[in-house]
Amino acid sequence: MNLTKRTELHRLPDRGAHDRETIYQILDAGFLAHVGFCVEGQPFVIPTLYGRDGAKLYLHGSAASRMLGQLATGIPACVTVTLVDGLVLARSAFDHSMNYRSAVAFGTAQKIADPAQKMKSLRVISEHLIAGRWQEVRQPSEKELKATTVLEFSIEEASSKVRSGPPLDDEDDYRLPVWAGVLPLETKSRVPIPDDRLIDGVIVPDYVRDYQARLNGGTSHPSDK
Amino acid sequence: MNLTKRTELHRLPDRGAHDRETIYQILDAGFLAHVGFCVEGQPFVIPTLYGRDGAKLYLHGSAASRMLGQLATGIPACVTVTLVDGLVLARSAFDHSMNYRSAVAFGTAQKIADPAQKMKSLRVISEHLIAGRWQEVRQPSEKELKATTVLEFSIEEASSKVRSGPPLDDEDDYRLPVWAGVLPLETKSRVPIPDDRLIDGVIVPDYVRDYQARLNGGTSHPSDK
Repeated sequence: MNLTKRTELHRLPDRGAHDRETIYQILDAGFLAHVGFCVEGQPFVIPTLYGRDGAKLYLHGSAASRMLGQLATGIPACVTVTLVDGLVLARSAFDHSMNYRSAVAFGTAQKIADPAQKMKSLRVISEHLIAGRWQEVRQPSEKELKATTVLEFSIEEASSKVRSGPPLDDEDDYRLPVWAGVLPLETKSRVPIPDDRLIDGVIVPDYVRDYQARLNGGTSHPSDK
Repeated sequence: MNLTKRTELHRLPDRGAHDRETIYQILDAGFLAHVGFCVEGQPFVIPTLYGRDGAKLYLHGSAASRMLGQLATGIPACVTVTLVDGLVLARSAFDHSMNYRSAVAFGTAQKIADPAQKMKSLRVISEHLIAGRWQEVRQPSEKELKATTVLEFSIEEASSKVRSGPPLDDEDDYRLPVWAGVLPLETKSRVPIPDDRLIDGVIVPDYVRDYQARLNGGTSHPSDK
Protein backbone atom coordinates (compact mmCIF):
# COMPACT_ATOMS: atom_id res chain seq x y z
CA MET A 1 0.00 0.00 0.00
CA ASN A 2 1.34 3.38 -0.96
CA LEU A 3 0.58 6.91 -0.04
CA THR A 4 -0.09 8.89 -3.18
CA LYS A 5 -2.51 11.54 -4.31
CA ARG A 6 -5.57 9.31 -3.94
CA THR A 7 -5.09 8.92 -0.23
CA GLU A 8 -3.57 12.22 0.73
CA LEU A 9 -5.56 13.70 3.55
CA HIS A 10 -6.31 17.30 2.80
CA ARG A 11 -8.28 17.97 5.93
CA LEU A 12 -7.90 17.10 9.59
CA PRO A 13 -4.58 15.34 9.02
CA ASP A 14 -4.44 14.51 12.73
CA ARG A 15 -7.34 12.13 12.19
CA GLY A 16 -5.70 10.38 9.28
CA ALA A 17 -3.63 7.26 9.58
CA HIS A 18 -2.03 5.23 6.88
CA ASP A 19 -0.40 2.51 8.85
CA ARG A 20 -1.29 -0.95 7.75
CA GLU A 21 -2.19 -2.19 11.22
CA THR A 22 -4.86 0.46 11.82
CA ILE A 23 -6.37 -0.12 8.39
CA TYR A 24 -6.47 -3.89 8.90
CA GLN A 25 -7.99 -3.49 12.36
CA ILE A 26 -10.84 -1.45 10.92
CA LEU A 27 -11.39 -3.85 8.03
CA ASP A 28 -11.41 -6.77 10.46
CA ALA A 29 -13.75 -5.15 12.96
CA GLY A 30 -16.34 -4.35 10.27
CA PHE A 31 -18.22 -6.73 8.04
CA LEU A 32 -20.15 -4.41 5.73
CA ALA A 33 -18.31 -2.54 3.00
CA HIS A 34 -19.54 0.06 0.56
CA VAL A 35 -18.00 -0.58 -2.84
CA GLY A 36 -17.70 2.23 -5.35
CA PHE A 37 -17.12 2.03 -9.10
CA CYS A 38 -17.75 4.24 -12.10
CA VAL A 39 -19.58 3.39 -15.29
CA GLU A 40 -19.30 6.10 -17.91
CA GLY A 41 -18.69 8.70 -15.23
CA GLN A 42 -21.64 7.59 -13.12
CA PRO A 43 -20.62 6.46 -9.62
CA PHE A 44 -22.31 3.50 -7.98
CA VAL A 45 -22.01 2.72 -4.26
CA ILE A 46 -23.23 -0.74 -3.28
CA PRO A 47 -23.18 -2.40 0.16
CA THR A 48 -21.64 -5.83 0.38
CA LEU A 49 -20.05 -8.30 2.80
CA TYR A 50 -16.36 -9.11 2.53
CA GLY A 51 -13.48 -11.07 3.97
CA ARG A 52 -9.78 -10.24 4.18
CA ASP A 53 -6.62 -12.22 3.72
CA GLY A 54 -3.53 -10.02 3.89
CA ALA A 55 -3.88 -7.17 1.40
CA LYS A 56 -6.68 -8.95 -0.46
CA LEU A 57 -10.38 -8.46 0.14
CA TYR A 58 -12.85 -11.06 -1.09
CA LEU A 59 -16.31 -10.13 -2.37
CA HIS A 60 -18.98 -12.51 -3.55
CA GLY A 61 -22.48 -12.62 -4.92
CA SER A 62 -24.68 -13.92 -7.66
CA ALA A 63 -23.04 -14.64 -11.00
CA ALA A 64 -25.69 -12.26 -12.38
CA SER A 65 -24.60 -9.37 -10.14
CA ARG A 66 -24.05 -6.22 -12.14
CA MET A 67 -21.64 -4.82 -9.58
CA LEU A 68 -19.42 -7.93 -9.60
CA GLY A 69 -19.55 -8.04 -13.40
CA GLN A 70 -18.38 -4.44 -13.61
CA LEU A 71 -15.64 -4.87 -11.01
CA ALA A 72 -14.41 -8.05 -12.72
CA THR A 73 -13.48 -6.01 -15.79
CA GLY A 74 -10.67 -4.56 -13.70
CA ILE A 75 -11.93 -0.99 -13.46
CA PRO A 76 -10.69 1.11 -10.51
CA ALA A 77 -12.69 0.43 -7.37
CA CYS A 78 -12.96 1.84 -3.88
CA VAL A 79 -13.94 -0.21 -0.84
CA THR A 80 -14.90 1.73 2.27
CA VAL A 81 -15.66 0.38 5.74
CA THR A 82 -17.00 2.69 8.44
CA LEU A 83 -17.59 1.96 12.10
CA VAL A 84 -19.58 4.50 14.09
CA ASP A 85 -18.55 4.71 17.74
CA GLY A 86 -20.56 7.63 19.03
CA LEU A 87 -22.06 11.07 18.69
CA VAL A 88 -19.84 13.89 19.93
CA LEU A 89 -22.11 16.54 21.38
CA ALA A 90 -20.39 19.87 21.84
CA ARG A 91 -21.67 23.13 23.32
CA SER A 92 -21.72 24.79 19.89
CA ALA A 93 -23.36 23.40 16.78
CA PHE A 94 -20.11 23.91 14.89
CA ASP A 95 -18.00 21.68 17.14
CA HIS A 96 -20.31 18.67 16.98
CA SER A 97 -18.62 15.63 15.60
CA MET A 98 -18.72 11.87 15.43
CA ASN A 99 -16.44 9.24 16.88
CA TYR A 100 -15.74 6.75 14.13
CA ARG A 101 -13.18 4.59 12.41
CA SER A 102 -13.11 4.36 8.63
CA ALA A 103 -10.87 2.69 6.09
CA VAL A 104 -10.86 3.60 2.41
CA ALA A 105 -9.11 1.12 0.11
CA PHE A 106 -8.35 1.65 -3.56
CA GLY A 107 -7.53 -1.12 -5.96
CA THR A 108 -8.88 -3.41 -8.62
CA ALA A 109 -10.65 -6.73 -8.53
CA GLN A 110 -10.43 -9.88 -10.56
CA LYS A 111 -12.70 -12.85 -10.83
CA ILE A 112 -11.53 -16.08 -9.25
CA ALA A 113 -12.01 -18.89 -11.75
CA ASP A 114 -10.44 -21.88 -10.01
CA PRO A 115 -13.14 -23.74 -8.01
CA ALA A 116 -10.77 -24.66 -5.18
CA GLN A 117 -9.60 -21.06 -4.85
CA LYS A 118 -13.22 -19.91 -5.00
CA MET A 119 -14.16 -22.27 -2.19
CA LYS A 120 -11.23 -21.06 -0.10
CA SER A 121 -12.18 -17.42 -0.65
CA LEU A 122 -15.83 -18.04 0.24
CA ARG A 123 -14.60 -19.61 3.44
CA VAL A 124 -12.57 -16.44 4.17
CA ILE A 125 -15.72 -14.32 3.75
CA SER A 126 -17.78 -16.66 5.92
CA GLU A 127 -15.17 -16.89 8.68
CA HIS A 128 -14.75 -13.12 8.66
CA LEU A 129 -18.45 -12.61 9.24
CA ILE A 130 -19.10 -15.45 11.65
CA ALA A 131 -16.16 -17.68 12.54
CA GLY A 132 -17.12 -21.30 13.10
CA ARG A 133 -20.13 -21.31 10.80
CA TRP A 134 -18.48 -22.63 7.62
CA GLN A 135 -17.50 -26.03 8.99
CA GLU A 136 -21.00 -26.74 10.29
CA VAL A 137 -23.06 -26.05 7.19
CA ARG A 138 -23.52 -27.88 3.92
CA GLN A 139 -20.69 -26.87 1.59
CA PRO A 140 -21.43 -25.32 -1.80
CA SER A 141 -22.26 -27.79 -4.57
CA GLU A 142 -20.63 -27.56 -7.96
CA LYS A 143 -23.79 -25.95 -9.30
CA GLU A 144 -23.95 -23.43 -6.46
CA LEU A 145 -20.30 -22.59 -6.93
CA LYS A 146 -20.96 -21.90 -10.61
CA ALA A 147 -23.86 -19.62 -9.68
CA THR A 148 -21.54 -17.63 -7.39
CA THR A 149 -19.03 -15.03 -8.49
CA VAL A 150 -16.09 -14.46 -6.18
CA LEU A 151 -13.75 -11.50 -6.64
CA GLU A 152 -10.33 -10.87 -5.23
CA PHE A 153 -9.83 -7.16 -4.62
CA SER A 154 -6.18 -6.17 -4.26
CA ILE A 155 -5.62 -3.22 -1.96
CA GLU A 156 -3.17 -0.97 -3.78
CA GLU A 157 -3.54 2.06 -1.53
CA ALA A 158 -5.51 2.67 1.61
CA SER A 159 -6.04 5.21 4.31
CA SER A 160 -7.88 5.35 7.58
CA LYS A 161 -9.49 8.02 9.67
CA VAL A 162 -10.20 7.73 13.35
CA ARG A 163 -11.82 10.15 15.77
CA SER A 164 -12.29 9.35 19.43
CA GLY A 165 -12.69 11.13 22.71
CA PRO A 166 -14.72 14.04 24.08
CA PRO A 167 -15.95 17.16 22.28
CA LEU A 168 -13.48 19.99 21.80
CA ASP A 169 -15.26 23.28 22.34
CA ASP A 170 -14.06 26.82 21.91
CA GLU A 171 -12.67 28.00 25.22
CA ASP A 172 -15.45 30.61 25.59
CA ASP A 173 -18.14 27.96 25.12
CA TYR A 174 -17.18 25.93 28.17
CA ARG A 175 -19.07 28.39 30.35
CA LEU A 176 -22.37 27.70 28.55
CA PRO A 177 -24.95 25.72 30.54
CA VAL A 178 -25.29 23.13 27.74
CA TRP A 179 -24.89 19.41 28.27
CA ALA A 180 -21.92 18.11 26.33
CA GLY A 181 -20.27 14.75 26.04
CA VAL A 182 -20.26 11.59 23.99
CA LEU A 183 -23.18 9.31 23.28
CA PRO A 184 -21.54 5.95 22.56
CA LEU A 185 -23.10 3.85 19.79
CA GLU A 186 -22.43 0.23 18.98
CA THR A 187 -23.76 -2.67 16.95
CA LYS A 188 -25.39 -5.26 19.18
CA SER A 189 -26.61 -8.76 18.47
CA ARG A 190 -29.94 -9.71 19.97
CA VAL A 191 -31.36 -13.10 20.95
CA PRO A 192 -31.14 -15.51 17.98
CA ILE A 193 -34.45 -16.37 16.31
CA PRO A 194 -34.53 -20.10 15.54
CA ASP A 195 -35.98 -21.16 12.19
CA ASP A 196 -39.47 -22.72 12.37
CA ARG A 197 -38.29 -25.92 10.77
CA LEU A 198 -35.31 -26.71 13.03
CA ILE A 199 -34.80 -30.40 13.80
CA ASP A 200 -35.59 -31.20 17.45
CA GLY A 201 -32.55 -31.09 19.69
CA VAL A 202 -30.46 -28.79 17.51
CA ILE A 203 -29.21 -26.01 19.78
CA VAL A 204 -27.83 -22.54 19.12
CA PRO A 205 -24.06 -22.77 18.49
CA ASP A 206 -21.69 -20.84 20.76
CA TYR A 207 -20.43 -18.71 17.87
CA VAL A 208 -24.01 -17.45 17.34
CA ARG A 209 -24.87 -16.96 21.01
CA ASP A 210 -21.54 -15.21 21.66
CA TYR A 211 -21.57 -13.13 18.47
CA GLN A 212 -21.32 -9.92 20.49
CA ALA A 213 -17.68 -10.76 21.20
CA ARG A 214 -16.96 -10.76 17.45
CA LEU A 215 -18.73 -7.43 17.06
CA ASN A 216 -16.70 -5.89 19.85
CA GLY A 217 -13.34 -7.36 19.06
CA GLY A 218 -13.19 -7.97 15.35
CA THR A 219 -11.51 -11.07 14.02
CA SER A 220 -7.89 -12.01 13.74
CA HIS A 221 -6.23 -13.26 10.63
CA PRO A 222 -3.42 -15.80 10.81
CA SER A 223 -1.79 -14.29 7.74
CA ASP A 224 -0.96 -11.07 9.61
CA LYS A 225 0.98 -12.76 12.34
CA MET B 1 -37.45 10.11 -8.97
CA ASN B 2 -37.52 7.96 -12.05
CA LEU B 3 -36.81 4.37 -12.82
CA THR B 4 -34.23 4.19 -15.56
CA LYS B 5 -31.20 2.12 -16.37
CA ARG B 6 -29.22 3.30 -13.37
CA THR B 7 -31.69 1.86 -10.92
CA GLU B 8 -32.96 -1.19 -12.76
CA LEU B 9 -32.57 -4.19 -10.53
CA HIS B 10 -30.97 -6.98 -12.47
CA ARG B 11 -30.93 -9.45 -9.64
CA LEU B 12 -33.35 -10.52 -6.95
CA PRO B 13 -36.08 -8.19 -8.19
CA ASP B 14 -38.31 -9.35 -5.32
CA ARG B 15 -35.98 -7.52 -2.95
CA GLY B 16 -36.09 -4.31 -4.91
CA ALA B 17 -38.44 -1.49 -4.24
CA HIS B 18 -38.63 1.87 -5.89
CA ASP B 19 -41.49 3.45 -4.07
CA ARG B 20 -40.71 6.77 -2.59
CA GLU B 21 -42.04 5.92 0.86
CA THR B 22 -39.71 2.93 1.34
CA ILE B 23 -36.72 4.92 0.15
CA TYR B 24 -37.52 7.84 2.45
CA GLN B 25 -38.08 5.49 5.41
CA ILE B 26 -34.60 4.04 4.93
CA LEU B 27 -33.00 7.45 4.50
CA ASP B 28 -34.77 8.67 7.63
CA ALA B 29 -33.89 5.65 9.76
CA GLY B 30 -30.19 5.90 8.93
CA PHE B 31 -27.82 8.74 9.66
CA LEU B 32 -24.60 7.64 7.96
CA ALA B 33 -24.35 7.75 4.18
CA HIS B 34 -21.60 6.58 1.88
CA VAL B 35 -21.14 9.10 -0.91
CA GLY B 36 -19.58 8.05 -4.20
CA PHE B 37 -18.08 10.22 -6.91
CA CYS B 38 -15.58 9.77 -9.72
CA VAL B 39 -12.49 11.82 -10.45
CA GLU B 40 -10.84 10.89 -13.75
CA GLY B 41 -12.37 7.43 -13.59
CA GLN B 42 -11.27 6.83 -10.02
CA PRO B 43 -14.17 6.18 -7.64
CA PHE B 44 -14.14 7.56 -4.10
CA VAL B 45 -16.53 6.40 -1.38
CA ILE B 46 -16.61 8.62 1.69
CA PRO B 47 -18.77 8.28 4.81
CA THR B 48 -20.73 11.33 5.89
CA LEU B 49 -23.74 12.44 7.90
CA TYR B 50 -26.77 13.85 6.14
CA GLY B 51 -30.25 15.24 6.56
CA ARG B 52 -33.28 15.05 4.31
CA ASP B 53 -35.98 17.49 3.29
CA GLY B 54 -38.26 16.03 0.63
CA ALA B 55 -36.17 14.83 -2.30
CA LYS B 56 -33.14 16.83 -1.14
CA LEU B 57 -30.33 15.51 1.00
CA TYR B 58 -28.05 17.93 2.83
CA LEU B 59 -24.37 17.24 3.35
CA HIS B 60 -21.90 19.40 5.19
CA GLY B 61 -18.29 19.61 6.21
CA SER B 62 -15.22 21.74 6.22
CA ALA B 63 -14.89 24.32 3.47
CA ALA B 64 -11.56 22.57 2.76
CA SER B 65 -13.19 19.17 2.19
CA ARG B 66 -12.06 17.60 -1.06
CA MET B 67 -15.23 15.53 -1.33
CA LEU B 68 -17.52 18.53 -0.95
CA GLY B 69 -15.41 20.52 -3.37
CA GLN B 70 -15.67 17.79 -5.99
CA LEU B 71 -19.39 17.28 -5.49
CA ALA B 72 -20.01 21.03 -5.69
CA THR B 73 -18.79 21.02 -9.29
CA GLY B 74 -22.02 19.19 -10.13
CA ILE B 75 -20.52 15.83 -11.10
CA PRO B 76 -22.79 12.76 -10.86
CA ALA B 77 -22.93 11.41 -7.33
CA CYS B 78 -24.36 8.40 -5.55
CA VAL B 79 -25.52 8.43 -1.95
CA THR B 80 -26.09 5.05 -0.32
CA VAL B 81 -27.54 4.32 3.10
CA THR B 82 -27.51 0.77 4.47
CA LEU B 83 -29.11 -0.57 7.63
CA VAL B 84 -28.12 -4.05 8.75
CA ASP B 85 -30.91 -5.91 10.54
CA GLY B 86 -29.46 -9.37 11.00
CA LEU B 87 -27.47 -12.35 9.84
CA VAL B 88 -29.51 -15.00 8.05
CA LEU B 89 -27.99 -18.36 8.90
CA ALA B 90 -29.13 -21.13 6.59
CA ARG B 91 -28.29 -24.84 6.62
CA SER B 92 -26.16 -24.50 3.50
CA ALA B 93 -23.34 -22.02 2.99
CA PHE B 94 -24.94 -20.95 -0.28
CA ASP B 95 -28.26 -19.86 1.22
CA HIS B 96 -26.76 -17.63 3.89
CA SER B 97 -27.91 -14.06 3.59
CA MET B 98 -28.35 -10.82 5.44
CA ASN B 99 -31.45 -8.96 6.52
CA TYR B 100 -30.95 -5.36 5.56
CA ARG B 101 -32.48 -2.23 4.12
CA SER B 102 -30.55 -0.11 1.67
CA ALA B 103 -31.30 2.96 -0.41
CA VAL B 104 -29.19 4.07 -3.34
CA ALA B 105 -29.81 7.61 -4.58
CA PHE B 106 -28.37 9.16 -7.72
CA GLY B 107 -28.20 12.86 -8.36
CA THR B 108 -26.04 15.94 -8.27
CA ALA B 109 -25.18 18.40 -5.57
CA GLN B 110 -24.77 22.13 -5.45
CA LYS B 111 -23.24 24.42 -2.90
CA ILE B 112 -25.58 26.54 -0.83
CA ALA B 113 -24.30 30.11 -0.83
CA ASP B 114 -27.04 32.01 1.02
CA PRO B 115 -26.18 32.13 4.76
CA ALA B 116 -29.83 31.83 5.87
CA GLN B 117 -30.35 28.83 3.63
CA LYS B 118 -27.08 27.33 4.89
CA MET B 119 -28.21 27.73 8.48
CA LYS B 120 -31.57 26.13 7.69
CA SER B 121 -29.87 23.18 5.99
CA LEU B 122 -27.46 22.67 8.87
CA ARG B 123 -30.46 22.56 11.15
CA VAL B 124 -32.00 19.84 8.94
CA ILE B 125 -28.82 17.74 9.27
CA SER B 126 -28.67 18.30 13.02
CA GLU B 127 -32.34 17.51 13.61
CA HIS B 128 -32.07 14.41 11.44
CA LEU B 129 -29.24 13.06 13.58
CA ILE B 130 -30.47 14.14 16.98
CA ALA B 131 -33.72 16.05 17.14
CA GLY B 132 -33.83 18.66 19.87
CA ARG B 133 -30.11 19.38 19.94
CA TRP B 134 -30.00 22.37 17.60
CA GLN B 135 -32.10 24.70 19.72
CA GLU B 136 -30.00 24.06 22.84
CA VAL B 137 -26.53 24.72 21.50
CA ARG B 138 -24.68 27.84 20.48
CA GLN B 139 -25.59 28.65 16.88
CA PRO B 140 -22.90 28.95 14.21
CA SER B 141 -21.16 32.31 14.05
CA GLU B 142 -20.64 34.09 10.76
CA LYS B 143 -17.03 32.91 10.75
CA GLU B 144 -18.03 29.30 11.47
CA LEU B 145 -20.65 29.42 8.76
CA LYS B 146 -18.02 30.60 6.29
CA ALA B 147 -15.76 27.73 7.32
CA THR B 148 -18.57 25.26 6.61
CA THR B 149 -19.62 24.02 3.19
CA VAL B 150 -23.20 22.85 2.88
CA LEU B 151 -24.40 20.98 -0.20
CA GLU B 152 -27.89 20.28 -1.41
CA PHE B 153 -28.01 16.92 -3.17
CA SER B 154 -31.06 16.50 -5.39
CA ILE B 155 -32.28 12.92 -5.64
CA GLU B 156 -32.94 12.34 -9.33
CA GLU B 157 -33.35 8.57 -9.16
CA ALA B 158 -33.33 6.14 -6.29
CA SER B 159 -33.92 2.52 -5.48
CA SER B 160 -34.15 0.46 -2.36
CA LYS B 161 -33.51 -3.14 -1.45
CA VAL B 162 -34.95 -4.88 1.57
CA ARG B 163 -34.53 -8.42 2.83
CA SER B 164 -36.25 -9.67 5.95
CA GLY B 165 -37.39 -12.92 7.45
CA PRO B 166 -35.97 -16.40 8.00
CA PRO B 167 -33.46 -18.31 5.86
CA LEU B 168 -34.78 -20.05 2.76
CA ASP B 169 -33.05 -23.40 2.42
CA ASP B 170 -33.23 -25.99 -0.32
CA GLU B 171 -35.98 -28.45 0.56
CA ASP B 172 -33.46 -31.28 1.00
CA ASP B 173 -31.41 -29.26 3.46
CA TYR B 174 -34.19 -28.93 6.03
CA ARG B 175 -33.39 -32.44 7.25
CA LEU B 176 -29.81 -31.46 8.19
CA PRO B 177 -29.07 -31.21 11.92
CA VAL B 178 -27.71 -27.68 11.54
CA TRP B 179 -28.92 -24.72 13.59
CA ALA B 180 -30.55 -22.15 11.33
CA GLY B 181 -32.32 -18.90 11.95
CA VAL B 182 -31.74 -15.19 12.19
CA LEU B 183 -29.31 -13.39 14.44
CA PRO B 184 -30.82 -9.90 14.77
CA LEU B 185 -28.39 -6.98 14.82
CA GLU B 186 -29.11 -3.40 15.74
CA THR B 187 -27.40 -0.14 16.55
CA LYS B 188 -27.66 0.67 20.23
CA SER B 189 -26.84 3.78 22.20
CA ARG B 190 -25.06 3.28 25.50
CA VAL B 191 -24.97 5.42 28.63
CA PRO B 192 -23.94 9.01 27.74
CA ILE B 193 -20.45 10.04 28.85
CA PRO B 194 -20.56 13.59 30.26
CA ASP B 195 -17.74 15.94 29.34
CA ASP B 196 -15.22 16.60 32.12
CA ARG B 197 -15.85 20.32 32.03
CA LEU B 198 -19.66 20.33 32.36
CA ILE B 199 -21.09 23.12 34.47
CA ASP B 200 -22.53 21.84 37.75
CA GLY B 201 -26.22 21.10 37.58
CA VAL B 202 -26.42 20.60 33.81
CA ILE B 203 -28.21 17.31 33.26
CA VAL B 204 -28.44 14.93 30.30
CA PRO B 205 -31.24 16.05 27.98
CA ASP B 206 -34.10 13.65 27.24
CA TYR B 207 -33.23 13.52 23.54
CA VAL B 208 -29.79 12.14 24.46
CA ARG B 209 -30.98 9.74 27.15
CA ASP B 210 -33.78 8.45 24.90
CA TYR B 211 -31.71 8.33 21.71
CA GLN B 212 -32.48 4.62 21.28
CA ALA B 213 -36.01 5.57 20.24
CA ARG B 214 -34.59 7.57 17.34
CA LEU B 215 -32.36 4.67 16.32
CA ASN B 216 -35.32 2.30 16.32
CA GLY B 217 -37.89 4.51 14.76
CA GLY B 218 -36.11 6.94 12.52
CA THR B 219 -37.34 10.49 12.27
CA SER B 220 -40.33 12.00 10.61
CA HIS B 221 -40.25 14.88 8.23
CA PRO B 222 -43.10 17.37 8.13
CA SER B 223 -42.52 17.96 4.41
CA ASP B 224 -43.66 14.40 3.57
CA LYS B 225 -47.03 14.79 5.21
